[in-house]
Amino acid sequence: MIAETPKPPYYAVIFTSVRTEGDNGYSDVSEKMVELASKQPGFLGMESAREDVGITVSYWEDLESIKVWKRNLEHLAAQKQGKEVWYHSYKTRIARVERDYGFDREVNRD
Amino acid sequence: MIAETPKPPYYAVIFTSVRTEGDNGYSDVSEKMVELASKQPGFLGMESAREDVGITVSYWEDLESIKVWKRNLEHLAAQKQGKEVWYHSYKTRIARVERDYGFDREVNRD
Repeated sequence: MIAETPKPPYYAVIFTSVRTEGDNGYSDVSEKMVELASKQPGFLGMESAREDVGITVSYWEDLESIKVWKRNLEHLAAQKQGKEVWYHSYKTRIARVERDYGFDREVNRD
Repeated sequence: MIAETPKPPYYAVIFTSVRTEGDNGYSDVSEKMVELASKQPGFLGMESAREDVGITVSYWEDLESIKVWKRNLEHLAAQKQGKEVWYHSYKTRIARVERDYGFDREVNRD
């Protein structure tokens, strides 16, 4: 659920979106894209949740692996449908993770 | 809904969490923290959604403003309750946003 990423630095793609009405094939393609992304070189993990906005954060080793994934042909087709059909609006932010820390009740670390 | 952030560079705090059962006062404090965060110097915006995991991304001008907010007394009290009561686990990632782009159906920009 919470992505198990290595020690920083690594990269995050923060994709925030507002959907249009109706599914219109979104769920199937979305599921396929998660599966496909997770097979890409440099992929480190992904977290996702949707309420009023959807937030998907994917984690990557470097900028090159993000670029390669952005240009993946099936992904490009999905991006096109995203603009034409599924999204009212979205914003993508590419960020370099410089520091992280966490807590887990099972192990009580921070 | 989607935060209107300035041109990069700026910073993102990606907070991903899994909640414990029950509200236990979480909703009230959470709402208060959003209100309080938004009044901090250097605050640029916030996006939030929860399903299996909760993802809250807050955006900040610089690392200093993130540090000041982390040490805010009311926020410290909330962080303590977070560990003791509300969260099963969480991870916080501090990241420097280097690039962003977006799409809005109303204005059709990318």
